[in-house]
Amino acid sequence: MSILALLTDFGWQDPYVGIVKGVLLSINPNLSIIDLTHSIPPQDIQTAAFFLGEASLYYPRDTIFMAVVDPEVGSQRAALACRIGNHYFVGPDNGIFTLALQRARQENKAAICHQITEKGLCLAKISRTFHARDIFAPVAAHLSLGMPLEKVGPPKFDPVLLSWTSPRISGLTIEGEVQYIDGFGNLITNIHENHLSQLRIKPLYVTINERRIPILSAYSQAEVLQPLAILGGYDLLEISVRNGNAALLLGVQKGCKVTVTG
Amino acid sequence: MSILALLTDFGWQDPYVGIVKGVLLSINPNLSIIDLTHSIPPQDIQTAAFFLGEASLYYPRDTIFMAVVDPEVGSQRAALACRIGNHYFVGPDNGIFTLALQRARQENKAAICHQITEKGLCLAKISRTFHARDIFAPVAAHLSLGMPLEKVGPPKFDPVLLSWTSPRISGLTIEGEVQYIDGFGNLITNIHENHLSQLRIKPLYVTINERRIPILSAYSQAEVLQPLAILGGYDLLEISVRNGNAALLLGVQKGCKVTVTG
Amino acid sequence: MSILALLTDFGWQDPYVGIVKGVLLSINPNLSIIDLTHSIPPQDIQTAAFFLGEASLYYPRDTIFMAVVDPEVGSQRAALACRIGNHYFVGPDNGIFTLALQRARQENKAAICHQITEKGLCLAKISRTFHARDIFAPVAAHLSLGMPLEKVGPPKFDPVLLSWTSPRISGLTIEGEVQYIDGFGNLITNIHENHLSQLRIKPLYVTINERRIPILSAYSQAEVLQPLAILGGYDLLEISVRNGNAALLLGVQKGCKVTVTG
Repeated sequence: MSILALLTDFGWQDPYVGIVKGVLLSINPNLSIIDLTHSIPPQDIQTAAFFLGEASLYYPRDTIFMAVVDPEVGSQRAALACRIGNHYFVGPDNGIFTLALQRARQENKAAICHQITEKGLCLAKISRTFHARDIFAPVAAHLSLGMPLEKVGPPKFDPVLLSWTSPRISGLTIEGEVQYIDGFGNLITNIHENHLSQLRIKPLYVTINERRIPILSAYSQAEVLQPLAILGGYDLLEISVRNGNAALLLGVQKGCKVTVTG
Repeated sequence: MSILALLTDFGWQDPYVGIVKGVLLSINPNLSIIDLTHSIPPQDIQTAAFFLGEASLYYPRDTIFMAVVDPEVGSQRAALACRIGNHYFVGPDNGIFTLALQRARQENKAAICHQITEKGLCLAKISRTFHARDIFAPVAAHLSLGMPLEKVGPPKFDPVLLSWTSPRISGLTIEGEVQYIDGFGNLITNIHENHLSQLRIKPLYVTINERRIPILSAYSQAEVLQPLAILGGYDLLEISVRNGNAALLLGVQKGCKVTVTG
Repeated sequence: MSILALLTDFGWQDPYVGIVKGVLLSINPNLSIIDLTHSIPPQDIQTAAFFLGEASLYYPRDTIFMAVVDPEVGSQRAALACRIGNHYFVGPDNGIFTLALQRARQENKAAICHQITEKGLCLAKISRTFHARDIFAPVAAHLSLGMPLEKVGPPKFDPVLLSWTSPRISGLTIEGEVQYIDGFGNLITNIHENHLSQLRIKPLYVTINERRIPILSAYSQAEVLQPLAILGGYDLLEISVRNGNAALLLGVQKGCKVTVTG
């Protein structure tokens, strides 16, 4: 049974997700459809790229990721079907696969994208506003049935990549930023465990919004409602508030600067 | 593997959806349950009917749609199991199947409804408030196992139908209305592609709330944050704002009048 | 095909749910994953326990419930895998299984918990913040493949139990409280059908916030927008407003006192 993991910004309130699932199942009724999310903030490609890059790490070989956050639907932006590492990715060519592609490059895994040009794989009528239904779902369903990737169209050697900010490490300091705020209000920085391990001093502190916060190793080491920094589930430095909401307490938004020092 | 597509107004915050899935799987553990949505606005039968009518178009033969938006649960309203075209529909007799039934009539497809009266198919104890669990889920699960439709009870020849407003076409003008506002703030009118093609003039404009808006063929033809009208994914005329929210920008609610002219 | 029902407070907006599903499917690609909910209010163990206790009643034998609302992740709180009645339960030892365990005791069903100590069943690297991914998902997936429960670690004879308030019945009066408010605004009390049947008087009234409300047998017996009490889907007394929201209309919160009298 093939697995298709679905990520969109469609929300649950409209028929769009249900329609996409119908198209998928009409072509492959045995498809196992997994909802990753439909709650990406509308048209927020960067959040989608982060989400997809992190979630795809954990899926079995040959999982198909269909990811549609597509503000430029109906324009000339290309439609892509890719093999990245052991997975398939299908969606618009707008940078949504940036993190997955970067990871593959860093880890020396194969990554090849093809532009979807083969109309015979799509629904008979292609609308200007709903390519998830008309193009991406049918192509993804055909891939799930074993169709070779190259049948979708010619290779696309220059897929769109979003710029992704890396932290600056200088002497005894790391300067990074908040790259994602999760639903608990945790501030996910772009500072990786590997960056931290380059500072050979202890204890370490994070400064954000002029507030100095200790880096701890468990939520329970902080007092209730006090802020702490911790290596979180993504192996990235996160700033949290024990049993509370760091984004609200610290008044922080995405892009806010974060400094790590001794 | 049978496919059951589930539509409710139960939301995800309560145990209701989980309970319904448990009843379904207890009768048919191999059922493939697809979440269409649980975010229909509470008790909004018309939105549910629109959603179901549009989404069901794309599902494979023999899919079972279980749709429960049921403000009159516990009263004398009938419970229905229907075969409409190639699909099954199970839910309350309150108009929730209006669009699916209208489509079948327009397309000369068979449509037959039965009233669920056979208590032996239901849970042993039927509550006054939760027929999704006690009646609709067990009946739907039995249908998924191949039970003939007529086993649920006698035919019901006059299922409740909601009135559905059609646009008026006169000379060089179409007068319609906003019938649905989606989660992106797009205003879905009741003006179909077929209605528009009866106006043999170009270019066409939409007037809504005293504002004149061009009908374009791609979002990208409008400036960012400017309104446009476009034939959307339902083959209906929609009013959108490029990278924005038309309902907010134009201050429009469901039922608002829309006029198309040259 | 094994069934795994997933309950969390992770929300849909973050990658956490998608990551957990990936870990599950990497170990057992044929697992049928059912979303119970990811909308438990953050860190609200009591709501999770109520939800899980009610929903699990309806699931087939051998269903695995993975339930993660885990404010003390990373501390010394134990990780549990349990067999309760005919079902498996996997999650933190913080009281989340209270209702399921109480039910088993009341109904004389077997219930045995084991502490998860066998690191070989977990992901290679166990983070301090995301045990759903690192511990609970892999253990649950291994159980779905038929691994005996005792392989996870030694028995845990004293799992954490939340205190759960029972109503007081004295003479002609029941004094209970609102234990849960659902998404429609219905006030679910802790007064069970069995408690009510001990009052051999009719008609019965509920008093809440100094307001006297009749106990009826169908929503439709109340006027639109008027409050009523009714035995709801949980076999518990609920206070509702016909086609309206009782929590808003009556200004009631969880824990509010409820008195039933003649």
